[in-house]
Amino acid sequence: MKVKRSERLIDMTYYLLENPHTLIPLTLFAKRYNSAKSSISEDLTIAKNTFAKRGLGFLETVPGAAGGVRYIPKMEKEAVEAFIQELCDELNHSKRLLPGGYVYLSDMLGEPKWLRKIGRAIASLYVDKEVDSVMTVATKGVPIAQAVASYLNVPFVIVRRDSKVTEGSTVSINYVSGSSSDRVEKMELSRRSLEMGSKVVIVDDFLKGGGTVNGMISLIEEFNSEVVGATVIAENIFKGERSVSDYTSLLKVDKVHTQERTIEVVPGDFIDKL
Amino acid sequence: MKVKRSERLIDMTYYLLENPHTLIPLTLFAKRYNSAKSSISEDLTIAKNTFAKRGLGFLETVPGAAGGVRYIPKMEKEAVEAFIQELCDELNHSKRLLPGGYVYLSDMLGEPKWLRKIGRAIASLYVDKEVDSVMTVATKGVPIAQAVASYLNVPFVIVRRDSKVTEGSTVSINYVSGSSSDRVEKMELSRRSLEMGSKVVIVDDFLKGGGTVNGMISLIEEFNSEVVGATVIAENIFKGERSVSDYTSLLKVDKVHTQERTIEVVPGDFIDKL
Repeated sequence: MKVKRSERLIDMTYYLLENPHTLIPLTLFAKRYNSAKSSISEDLTIAKNTFAKRGLGFLETVPGAAGGVRYIPKMEKEAVEAFIQELCDELNHSKRLLPGGYVYLSDMLGEPKWLRKIGRAIASLYVDKEVDSVMTVATKGVPIAQAVASYLNVPFVIVRRDSKVTEGSTVSINYVSGSSSDRVEKMELSRRSLEMGSKVVIVDDFLKGGGTVNGMISLIEEFNSEVVGATVIAENIFKGERSVSDYTSLLKVDKVHTQERTIEVVPGDFIDKL
Repeated sequence: MKVKRSERLIDMTYYLLENPHTLIPLTLFAKRYNSAKSSISEDLTIAKNTFAKRGLGFLETVPGAAGGVRYIPKMEKEAVEAFIQELCDELNHSKRLLPGGYVYLSDMLGEPKWLRKIGRAIASLYVDKEVDSVMTVATKGVPIAQAVASYLNVPFVIVRRDSKVTEGSTVSINYVSGSSSDRVEKMELSRRSLEMGSKVVIVDDFLKGGGTVNGMISLIEEFNSEVVGATVIAENIFKGERSVSDYTSLLKVDKVHTQERTIEVVPGDFIDKL
Protein backbone atom coordinates (compact mmCIF):
# COMPACT_ATOMS: atom_id res chain seq x y z
CA MET A 1 0.00 0.00 0.00
CA LYS A 2 1.16 3.49 -0.83
CA VAL A 3 2.40 5.38 2.19
CA LYS A 4 0.85 8.80 2.86
CA ARG A 5 2.87 11.96 2.45
CA SER A 6 2.67 12.85 6.15
CA GLU A 7 4.17 9.49 7.12
CA ARG A 8 6.76 9.75 4.35
CA LEU A 9 7.94 13.17 5.52
CA ILE A 10 8.36 12.04 9.14
CA ASP A 11 10.22 8.85 8.30
CA MET A 12 12.29 10.59 5.61
CA THR A 13 13.42 13.27 8.08
CA TYR A 14 14.41 10.59 10.56
CA TYR A 15 16.25 8.63 7.87
CA LEU A 16 18.14 11.66 6.59
CA LEU A 17 19.23 12.72 10.09
CA GLU A 18 20.47 9.19 10.80
CA ASN A 19 22.52 9.13 7.59
CA PRO A 20 24.26 12.48 7.19
CA HIS A 21 26.65 13.00 4.25
CA THR A 22 25.29 9.89 2.58
CA LEU A 23 23.87 9.93 -0.93
CA ILE A 24 20.45 8.31 -0.71
CA PRO A 25 19.01 7.28 -4.08
CA LEU A 26 15.42 8.34 -4.76
CA THR A 27 14.68 4.72 -5.54
CA LEU A 28 15.37 3.79 -1.91
CA PHE A 29 12.61 6.11 -0.72
CA ALA A 30 10.32 5.16 -3.62
CA LYS A 31 10.59 1.52 -2.61
CA ARG A 32 10.44 2.20 1.13
CA TYR A 33 7.16 4.07 0.74
CA ASN A 34 5.80 2.22 -2.28
CA SER A 35 5.43 5.58 -4.00
CA ALA A 36 6.25 7.07 -7.38
CA LYS A 37 9.60 8.80 -7.78
CA SER A 38 7.74 11.97 -8.72
CA SER A 39 6.00 11.98 -5.32
CA ILE A 40 9.33 11.43 -3.58
CA SER A 41 10.79 14.35 -5.54
CA GLU A 42 7.98 16.55 -4.31
CA ASP A 43 8.56 15.39 -0.72
CA LEU A 44 12.23 16.25 -1.01
CA THR A 45 11.45 19.72 -2.31
CA ILE A 46 9.27 20.33 0.73
CA ALA A 47 11.95 18.89 3.02
CA LYS A 48 14.70 20.92 1.35
CA ASN A 49 12.81 24.17 1.82
CA THR A 50 11.92 23.38 5.42
CA PHE A 51 15.49 22.40 6.33
CA ALA A 52 16.80 25.65 4.81
CA LYS A 53 14.11 27.86 6.35
CA ARG A 54 14.47 26.34 9.81
CA GLY A 55 18.27 26.13 9.86
CA LEU A 56 18.31 22.34 10.17
CA GLY A 57 21.13 21.95 7.66
CA PHE A 58 21.07 21.48 3.90
CA LEU A 59 19.54 18.91 1.63
CA GLU A 60 21.68 18.56 -1.45
CA THR A 61 19.85 17.02 -4.37
CA VAL A 62 21.89 15.25 -7.02
CA PRO A 63 20.03 14.96 -10.34
CA GLY A 64 20.22 12.11 -12.84
CA ALA A 65 19.95 8.34 -12.83
CA ALA A 66 22.68 7.94 -10.19
CA GLY A 67 21.27 10.86 -8.25
CA GLY A 68 19.53 11.22 -4.97
CA VAL A 69 19.64 13.33 -1.87
CA ARG A 70 22.30 14.04 0.73
CA TYR A 71 21.79 15.61 4.15
CA ILE A 72 24.53 18.03 5.21
CA PRO A 73 24.20 19.01 8.87
CA LYS A 74 25.52 22.55 8.79
CA MET A 75 24.83 25.38 11.20
CA GLU A 76 24.37 28.87 9.79
CA LYS A 77 27.09 31.36 10.69
CA GLU A 78 24.70 33.39 12.86
CA ALA A 79 23.67 30.25 14.78
CA VAL A 80 27.33 29.35 15.39
CA GLU A 81 28.00 32.90 16.56
CA ALA A 82 25.08 32.75 19.01
CA PHE A 83 26.22 29.34 20.24
CA ILE A 84 29.79 30.53 20.86
CA GLN A 85 28.40 33.47 22.85
CA GLU A 86 26.32 31.00 24.86
CA LEU A 87 29.50 29.01 25.58
CA CYS A 88 31.30 32.19 26.72
CA ASP A 89 28.47 33.09 29.08
CA GLU A 90 28.50 29.61 30.54
CA LEU A 91 32.26 29.59 31.07
CA ASN A 92 32.70 33.11 32.46
CA HIS A 93 32.37 32.00 36.05
CA SER A 94 35.05 32.03 38.69
CA LYS A 95 33.93 28.58 39.86
CA ARG A 96 35.31 27.26 36.58
CA LEU A 97 38.82 28.51 37.29
CA LEU A 98 41.29 25.75 38.07
CA PRO A 99 44.88 26.00 39.30
CA GLY A 100 47.34 26.81 36.50
CA GLY A 101 44.87 28.95 34.56
CA TYR A 102 42.89 25.96 33.31
CA VAL A 103 39.15 26.10 32.92
CA TYR A 104 36.83 23.36 34.11
CA LEU A 105 35.04 22.07 31.01
CA SER A 106 34.41 18.42 31.89
CA ASP A 107 30.75 18.90 32.74
CA MET A 108 29.98 20.45 29.33
CA LEU A 109 31.97 17.75 27.58
CA GLY A 110 29.72 15.23 29.30
CA GLU A 111 26.43 16.90 28.36
CA PRO A 112 24.76 15.53 25.21
CA LYS A 113 22.98 18.82 24.58
CA TRP A 114 26.26 20.79 24.53
CA LEU A 115 28.07 18.08 22.56
CA ARG A 116 25.43 18.05 19.84
CA LYS A 117 25.96 21.78 19.35
CA ILE A 118 29.74 21.58 19.58
CA GLY A 119 29.74 18.74 17.05
CA ARG A 120 27.47 20.47 14.60
CA ALA A 121 29.31 23.79 14.91
CA ILE A 122 32.80 22.34 14.33
CA ALA A 123 31.56 20.03 11.56
CA SER A 124 30.14 23.10 9.78
CA LEU A 125 33.70 24.26 9.06
CA TYR A 126 34.55 21.02 7.28
CA VAL A 127 31.35 20.08 5.44
CA ASP A 128 32.66 21.19 2.07
CA LYS A 129 36.00 19.44 2.48
CA GLU A 130 36.90 15.83 1.94
CA VAL A 131 37.34 14.28 5.38
CA ASP A 132 38.06 10.61 6.09
CA SER A 133 38.60 10.71 9.80
CA VAL A 134 38.55 12.87 12.94
CA MET A 135 41.51 12.54 15.30
CA THR A 136 41.90 13.46 18.94
CA VAL A 137 43.97 12.56 21.96
CA ALA A 138 42.61 10.67 24.98
CA THR A 139 40.69 11.41 27.18
CA LYS A 140 39.15 14.86 27.07
CA GLY A 141 39.12 15.13 23.32
CA VAL A 142 37.12 11.94 22.79
CA PRO A 143 33.58 13.36 23.26
CA ILE A 144 34.42 16.25 20.93
CA ALA A 145 35.81 13.92 18.27
CA GLN A 146 32.78 11.67 18.54
CA ALA A 147 30.36 14.60 18.23
CA VAL A 148 32.15 16.06 15.20
CA ALA A 149 32.58 12.66 13.55
CA SER A 150 28.90 11.94 14.05
CA TYR A 151 27.86 15.02 12.05
CA LEU A 152 30.50 14.42 9.36
CA ASN A 153 29.56 10.72 9.46
CA VAL A 154 33.18 9.55 9.39
CA PRO A 155 35.10 7.46 11.93
CA PHE A 156 37.16 9.05 14.69
CA VAL A 157 40.47 7.78 16.04
CA ILE A 158 41.93 8.21 19.50
CA VAL A 159 45.61 8.87 20.03
CA ARG A 160 46.86 7.67 23.40
CA ARG A 161 49.75 8.46 25.64
CA ASP A 162 49.67 4.89 26.92
CA SER A 163 48.47 2.12 24.65
CA LYS A 164 46.51 -0.84 25.91
CA VAL A 165 46.49 -4.53 25.08
CA THR A 166 43.16 -4.06 23.33
CA GLU A 167 44.73 -1.83 20.68
CA GLY A 168 46.85 -4.27 18.74
CA SER A 169 50.04 -2.97 17.14
CA THR A 170 50.62 0.77 17.27
CA VAL A 171 52.69 3.50 15.65
CA SER A 172 54.25 5.85 18.16
CA ILE A 173 56.05 9.17 17.96
CA ASN A 174 57.82 11.43 20.40
CA TYR A 175 56.80 15.06 20.65
CA VAL A 176 57.84 18.11 22.56
CA SER A 177 55.21 18.97 25.12
CA GLY A 178 54.27 22.61 24.53
CA SER A 179 53.75 23.51 28.13
CA SER A 180 57.30 22.63 29.14
CA SER A 181 59.35 22.83 26.00
CA ASP A 182 62.11 20.54 27.20
CA ARG A 183 59.84 17.65 28.09
CA VAL A 184 59.57 14.98 25.43
CA GLU A 185 56.50 12.79 25.57
CA LYS A 186 55.20 9.84 23.58
CA MET A 187 51.87 9.37 21.82
CA GLU A 188 50.68 6.42 19.84
CA LEU A 189 47.91 5.30 17.55
CA SER A 190 46.67 1.83 16.75
CA ARG A 191 47.96 0.84 13.32
CA ARG A 192 44.57 -0.50 12.28
CA SER A 193 42.69 2.64 13.17
CA LEU A 194 43.85 4.92 10.36
CA GLU A 195 44.34 4.03 6.71
CA MET A 196 47.34 5.40 4.85
CA GLY A 197 46.45 8.43 2.74
CA SER A 198 43.58 9.60 4.93
CA LYS A 199 42.40 13.19 5.21
CA VAL A 200 42.16 14.02 8.89
CA VAL A 201 40.54 16.73 11.02
CA ILE A 202 42.17 17.23 14.43
CA VAL A 203 40.08 18.29 17.44
CA ASP A 204 40.89 18.79 21.11
CA ASP A 205 39.56 20.54 24.18
CA PHE A 206 42.40 22.91 25.14
CA LEU A 207 45.36 24.34 23.30
CA LYS A 208 48.09 25.89 25.35
CA GLY A 209 51.53 25.55 23.79
CA GLY A 210 50.31 23.50 20.87
CA GLY A 211 52.55 20.52 21.58
CA THR A 212 49.73 17.98 21.55
CA VAL A 213 48.27 19.20 18.27
CA ASN A 214 51.77 19.27 16.81
CA GLY A 215 52.29 15.69 17.97
CA MET A 216 49.10 14.61 16.22
CA ILE A 217 50.28 16.33 13.03
CA SER A 218 53.52 14.30 13.17
CA LEU A 219 51.55 11.14 13.77
CA ILE A 220 49.32 11.87 10.77
CA GLU A 221 52.48 12.23 8.66
CA GLU A 222 53.65 8.83 9.90
CA PHE A 223 50.46 7.41 8.39
CA ASN A 224 51.21 9.23 5.11
CA SER A 225 48.04 11.14 5.71
CA GLU A 226 46.99 14.75 5.43
CA VAL A 227 45.75 17.30 7.97
CA VAL A 228 42.56 19.01 6.77
CA GLY A 229 42.44 21.31 9.78
CA ALA A 230 42.63 21.55 13.54
CA THR A 231 39.96 22.99 15.84
CA VAL A 232 40.01 23.28 19.62
CA ILE A 233 37.26 24.33 21.99
CA ALA A 234 39.43 26.75 23.96
CA GLU A 235 42.75 28.35 23.36
CA ASN A 236 44.41 29.09 26.62
CA ILE A 237 46.65 31.98 27.56
CA PHE A 238 50.21 31.16 26.60
CA LYS A 239 53.31 33.25 26.91
CA GLY A 240 55.85 32.40 24.25
CA GLU A 241 55.84 31.05 20.75
CA ARG A 242 53.39 28.29 19.91
CA SER A 243 54.68 25.23 18.15
CA VAL A 244 51.63 25.16 15.91
CA SER A 245 49.96 28.05 14.09
CA ASP A 246 47.38 26.57 11.79
CA TYR A 247 44.35 25.96 13.96
CA THR A 248 41.06 27.54 14.90
CA SER A 249 39.50 27.90 18.35
CA LEU A 250 35.89 28.37 19.37
CA LEU A 251 36.94 30.28 22.49
CA LYS A 252 39.84 32.20 23.88
CA VAL A 253 40.56 32.30 27.60
CA ASP A 254 41.76 35.86 27.59
CA LYS A 255 42.45 36.89 31.14
CA VAL A 256 42.83 34.70 34.13
CA HIS A 257 43.45 36.40 37.44
CA THR A 258 44.23 33.60 39.80
CA GLN A 259 44.32 35.86 42.85
CA GLU A 260 41.00 37.59 42.27
CA ARG A 261 39.69 34.31 40.84
CA THR A 262 38.28 35.95 37.75
CA ILE A 263 38.35 34.68 34.20
CA GLU A 264 37.48 36.15 30.83
CA VAL A 265 36.36 33.88 28.03
CA VAL A 266 35.83 35.48 24.60
CA PRO A 267 35.06 34.07 21.13
CA GLY A 268 38.06 32.63 19.27
CA ASP A 269 38.78 32.92 15.55
CA PHE A 270 36.58 29.99 14.52
CA ILE A 271 33.72 32.18 13.39
CA ASP A 272 35.99 34.16 11.02
CA LYS A 273 36.94 30.97 9.21
CA LEU A 274 33.37 29.87 8.54
CA MET B 1 1.56 33.14 8.99
CA LYS B 2 0.36 29.68 9.78
CA VAL B 3 2.91 27.02 8.94
CA LYS B 4 1.78 24.17 6.69
CA ARG B 5 1.38 20.66 8.06
CA SER B 6 4.16 19.24 5.87
CA GLU B 7 6.64 21.78 7.21
CA ARG B 8 5.41 21.25 10.77
CA LEU B 9 5.89 17.49 10.57
CA ILE B 10 9.47 17.79 9.29
CA ASP B 11 10.54 20.38 11.84
CA MET B 12 8.69 18.59 14.64
CA THR B 13 10.46 15.31 13.87
CA TYR B 14 13.81 17.10 13.93
CA TYR B 15 12.94 18.87 17.18
CA LEU B 16 11.80 15.68 18.91
CA LEU B 17 14.92 13.76 17.86
CA GLU B 18 17.13 16.57 19.17
CA ASN B 19 15.36 16.57 22.53
CA PRO B 20 14.80 12.98 23.62
CA HIS B 21 13.23 12.29 27.04
CA THR B 22 12.15 15.90 27.28
CA LEU B 23 8.53 16.89 27.86
CA ILE B 24 7.68 19.39 25.15
CA PRO B 25 4.49 21.38 25.83
CA LEU B 26 1.99 21.56 22.97
CA THR B 27 2.08 25.32 23.36
CA LEU B 28 5.72 25.37 22.26
CA PHE B 29 4.82 23.80 18.92
CA ALA B 30 1.63 25.87 18.63
CA LYS B 31 3.68 29.04 18.97
CA ARG B 32 6.56 27.80 16.84
CA TYR B 33 4.20 27.08 13.94
CA ASN B 34 1.60 29.74 14.66
CA SER B 35 -1.02 26.99 14.63
CA ALA B 36 -3.94 25.94 16.77
CA LYS B 37 -3.30 23.39 19.50
CA SER B 38 -5.86 21.11 17.86
CA SER B 39 -3.78 21.05 14.66
CA ILE B 40 -0.64 20.27 16.68
CA SER B 41 -2.51 17.45 18.39
CA GLU B 42 -3.40 15.99 15.01
CA ASP B 43 0.24 16.29 13.90
CA LEU B 44 1.38 14.44 16.98
CA THR B 45 -1.10 11.64 16.39
CA ILE B 46 0.32 11.19 12.89
CA ALA B 47 3.87 11.35 14.26
CA LYS B 48 3.09 8.92 17.07
CA ASN B 49 1.66 6.35 14.67
CA THR B 50 4.55 6.73 12.23
CA PHE B 51 7.19 6.43 14.95
CA ALA B 52 5.52 3.26 16.25
CA LYS B 53 4.97 1.72 12.81
CA ARG B 54 8.51 2.45 11.61
CA GLY B 55 10.29 1.49 14.84
CA LEU B 56 11.71 4.98 15.37
CA GLY B 57 10.96 4.93 19.09
CA PHE B 58 7.91 6.06 21.04
CA LEU B 59 6.08 9.32 21.35
CA GLU B 60 4.54 9.55 24.79
CA THR B 61 1.72 12.04 25.01
CA VAL B 62 0.93 13.54 28.38
CA PRO B 63 -2.60 14.95 28.58
CA GLY B 64 -3.77 17.99 30.53
CA ALA B 65 -2.76 21.63 30.92
CA ALA B 66 0.82 20.73 31.94
CA GLY B 67 0.91 18.07 29.25
CA GLY B 68 2.81 17.68 26.05
CA VAL B 69 4.84 15.12 24.19
CA ARG B 70 8.01 13.23 24.98
CA TYR B 71 10.21 11.31 22.54
CA ILE B 72 11.58 8.03 23.89
CA PRO B 73 14.23 6.57 21.57
CA LYS B 74 13.69 2.87 22.12
CA MET B 75 14.58 0.00 19.83
CA GLU B 76 12.13 -2.88 19.55
CA LYS B 77 13.36 -6.18 20.94
CA GLU B 78 13.51 -7.75 17.47
CA ALA B 79 15.60 -4.85 16.18
CA VAL B 80 18.03 -5.20 19.10
CA GLU B 81 18.24 -8.93 18.44
CA ALA B 82 19.04 -8.35 14.77
CA PHE B 83 21.61 -5.71 15.70
CA ILE B 84 23.38 -8.00 18.18
CA GLN B 85 23.54 -10.67 15.49
CA GLU B 86 25.04 -8.08 13.13
CA LEU B 87 27.68 -7.31 15.79
CA CYS B 88 28.50 -11.02 16.16
CA ASP B 89 28.93 -11.42 12.41
CA GLU B 90 31.23 -8.42 12.31
CA LEU B 91 33.37 -9.63 15.20
CA ASN B 92 33.65 -13.30 14.26
CA HIS B 93 36.87 -12.78 12.35
CA SER B 94 40.28 -14.05 13.25
CA LYS B 95 41.81 -10.69 12.30
CA ARG B 96 40.07 -9.29 15.39
CA LEU B 97 41.86 -11.64 17.75
CA LEU B 98 44.46 -9.93 19.94
CA PRO B 99 47.02 -11.47 22.31
CA GLY B 100 45.50 -12.48 25.65
CA GLY B 101 42.13 -13.41 24.20
CA TYR B 102 41.07 -9.80 23.67
CA VAL B 103 39.05 -8.74 20.68
CA TYR B 104 39.83 -5.68 18.62
CA LEU B 105 36.81 -3.39 18.91
CA SER B 106 38.36 0.07 18.56
CA ASP B 107 37.29 0.56 14.96
CA MET B 108 33.61 -0.07 15.78
CA LEU B 109 33.83 2.18 18.82
CA GLY B 110 35.03 4.92 16.47
CA GLU B 111 32.26 4.51 13.89
CA PRO B 112 29.27 6.83 14.33
CA LYS B 113 26.96 4.38 12.58
CA TRP B 114 27.80 1.56 15.03
CA LEU B 115 27.77 3.89 18.02
CA ARG B 116 24.30 5.19 17.20
CA LYS B 117 23.00 1.61 17.24
CA ILE B 118 24.96 0.64 20.36
CA GLY B 119 23.68 3.75 22.13
CA ARG B 120 20.08 3.21 21.17
CA ALA B 121 20.19 -0.50 21.98
CA ILE B 122 21.68 -0.08 25.46
CA ALA B 123 19.48 2.94 26.23
CA SER B 124 16.43 0.79 25.43
CA LEU B 125 17.06 -1.25 28.59
CA TYR B 126 16.92 1.85 30.78
CA VAL B 127 14.22 4.02 29.17
CA ASP B 128 11.63 3.18 31.81
CA LYS B 129 13.98 3.75 34.71
CA GLU B 130 15.02 6.96 36.37
CA VAL B 131 18.59 7.69 35.26
CA ASP B 132 20.60 10.80 36.14
CA SER B 133 23.96 9.88 34.70
CA VAL B 134 25.92 7.33 32.67
CA MET B 135 29.33 6.35 34.02
CA THR B 136 32.29 4.73 32.33
CA VAL B 137 36.04 4.42 32.69
CA ALA B 138 38.54 6.08 30.35
CA THR B 139 39.32 5.59 27.48
CA LYS B 140 37.50 2.82 25.65
CA GLY B 141 34.23 3.24 27.47
CA VAL B 142 33.84 6.92 26.60
CA PRO B 143 32.26 6.56 23.15
CA ILE B 144 29.79 4.01 24.54
CA ALA B 145 28.87 6.24 27.47
CA GLN B 146 28.42 9.20 25.16
CA ALA B 147 26.20 7.24 22.78
CA VAL B 148 24.00 5.85 25.57
CA ALA B 149 23.82 9.22 27.37
CA SER B 150 22.83 10.90 24.14
CA TYR B 151 19.75 8.66 23.75
CA LEU B 152 18.84 8.92 27.44
CA ASN B 153 19.61 12.66 27.25
CA VAL B 154 21.51 12.67 30.54
CA PRO B 155 25.15 13.61 31.25
CA PHE B 156 27.93 11.03 31.29
CA VAL B 157 30.92 10.98 33.61
CA ILE B 158 34.36 9.55 33.00
CA VAL B 159 36.26 7.73 35.72
CA ARG B 160 40.02 7.89 35.26
CA ARG B 161 42.96 5.88 36.40
CA ASP B 162 45.08 9.05 36.29
CA SER B 163 43.45 12.40 36.95
CA LYS B 164 44.54 15.55 35.19
CA VAL B 165 44.92 19.17 36.23
CA THR B 166 41.82 20.02 34.25
CA GLU B 167 39.62 17.92 36.52
CA GLY B 168 39.65 19.90 39.73
CA SER B 169 39.36 18.01 43.01
CA THR B 170 38.61 14.30 42.76
CA VAL B 171 37.36 11.39 44.85
CA SER B 172 39.48 8.29 44.48
CA ILE B 173 39.10 4.68 45.50
CA ASN B 174 41.28 1.60 45.37
CA TYR B 175 39.94 -1.53 43.76
CA VAL B 176 41.10 -5.05 43.11
CA SER B 177 41.85 -5.51 39.44
CA GLY B 178 39.84 -8.53 38.31
CA SER B 179 42.39 -9.86 35.89
CA SER B 180 45.06 -10.32 38.55
CA SER B 181 43.30 -10.55 41.87
CA ASP B 182 46.23 -9.42 43.94
CA ARG B 183 46.80 -6.16 42.09
CA VAL B 184 45.22 -3.13 43.68
CA GLU B 185 44.62 -0.17 41.39
CA LYS B 186 43.25 3.32 41.83
CA MET B 187 40.43 5.07 39.99
CA GLU B 188 39.10 8.55 40.52
CA LEU B 189 36.28 10.82 39.55
CA SER B 190 36.09 14.58 39.52
CA ARG B 191 34.06 15.73 42.53
CA ARG B 192 32.06 18.17 40.43
CA SER B 193 31.04 15.64 37.85
CA LEU B 194 28.50 13.64 39.86
CA GLU B 195 25.91 14.96 42.30
CA MET B 196 25.27 13.09 45.53
CA GLY B 197 22.19 10.90 45.31
CA SER B 198 22.40 10.27 41.57
CA LYS B 199 21.03 7.22 39.80
CA VAL B 200 23.77 5.86 37.58
CA VAL B 201 24.03 3.45 34.66
CA ILE B 202 27.50 1.89 34.21
CA VAL B 203 28.77 1.01 30.73
CA ASP B 204 32.08 -0.34 29.46
CA ASP B 205 33.56 -2.12 26.46
CA PHE B 206 34.92 -5.37 27.96
CA LEU B 207 34.25 -7.26 31.13
CA LYS B 208 36.76 -9.91 32.12
CA GLY B 209 37.07 -10.37 35.86
CA GLY B 210 34.68 -7.56 36.68
CA GLY B 211 37.18 -5.55 38.73
CA THR B 212 36.66 -2.32 36.82
CA VAL B 213 32.87 -2.46 37.05
CA ASN B 214 33.20 -3.31 40.72
CA GLY B 215 35.48 -0.31 41.21
CA MET B 216 32.89 1.95 39.60
CA ILE B 217 30.22 0.55 41.91
CA SER B 218 32.38 1.46 44.92
CA LEU B 219 32.96 4.91 43.51
CA ILE B 220 29.22 5.41 43.05
CA GLU B 221 28.75 4.50 46.70
CA GLU B 222 31.34 7.12 47.65
CA PHE B 223 29.07 9.67 45.99
CA ASN B 224 26.08 8.33 47.98
CA SER B 225 24.61 7.37 44.67
CA GLU B 226 22.81 4.35 43.27
CA VAL B 227 23.63 1.87 40.51
CA VAL B 228 20.69 1.45 38.13
CA GLY B 229 22.46 -1.22 36.09
CA ALA B 230 25.66 -2.15 34.29
CA THR B 231 25.97 -3.10 30.62
CA VAL B 232 29.09 -4.04 28.69
CA ILE B 233 29.56 -4.61 24.98
CA ALA B 234 31.46 -7.87 25.37
CA GLU B 235 31.96 -10.27 28.20
CA ASN B 236 35.24 -12.02 27.81
CA ILE B 237 36.15 -15.57 28.71
CA PHE B 238 37.18 -15.71 32.33
CA LYS B 239 38.20 -18.64 34.44
CA GLY B 240 37.35 -18.16 38.07
CA GLU B 241 34.80 -16.28 40.10
CA ARG B 242 33.83 -12.83 38.95
CA SER B 243 33.84 -10.02 41.47
CA VAL B 244 30.61 -8.67 40.03
CA SER B 245 27.47 -10.55 39.03
CA ASP B 246 24.80 -7.98 38.31
CA TYR B 247 25.48 -6.86 34.76
CA THR B 248 24.32 -7.52 31.21
CA SER B 249 26.42 -7.99 28.09
CA LEU B 250 25.52 -7.53 24.44
CA LEU B 251 28.04 -10.18 23.41
CA LYS B 252 29.94 -13.10 24.80
CA VAL B 253 33.36 -14.02 23.49
CA ASP B 254 32.84 -17.72 23.88
CA LYS B 255 35.82 -19.52 22.47
CA VAL B 256 39.16 -18.08 21.65
CA HIS B 257 41.72 -20.43 20.18
CA THR B 258 44.88 -18.45 20.13
CA GLN B 259 46.81 -21.12 18.26
CA GLU B 260 44.33 -21.67 15.45
CA ARG B 261 43.51 -17.94 15.65
CA THR B 262 39.78 -18.54 15.76
CA ILE B 263 37.20 -16.74 17.83
CA GLU B 264 33.54 -17.30 18.57
CA VAL B 265 31.36 -14.35 19.46
CA VAL B 266 27.76 -15.10 20.48
CA PRO B 267 24.92 -12.96 21.87
CA GLY B 268 25.14 -12.18 25.60
CA ASP B 269 22.22 -12.01 28.04
CA PHE B 270 21.26 -8.43 27.22
CA ILE B 271 18.38 -9.44 25.00
CA ASP B 272 16.80 -11.55 27.78
CA LYS B 273 16.64 -8.53 30.07
CA LEU B 274 14.83 -6.31 27.58
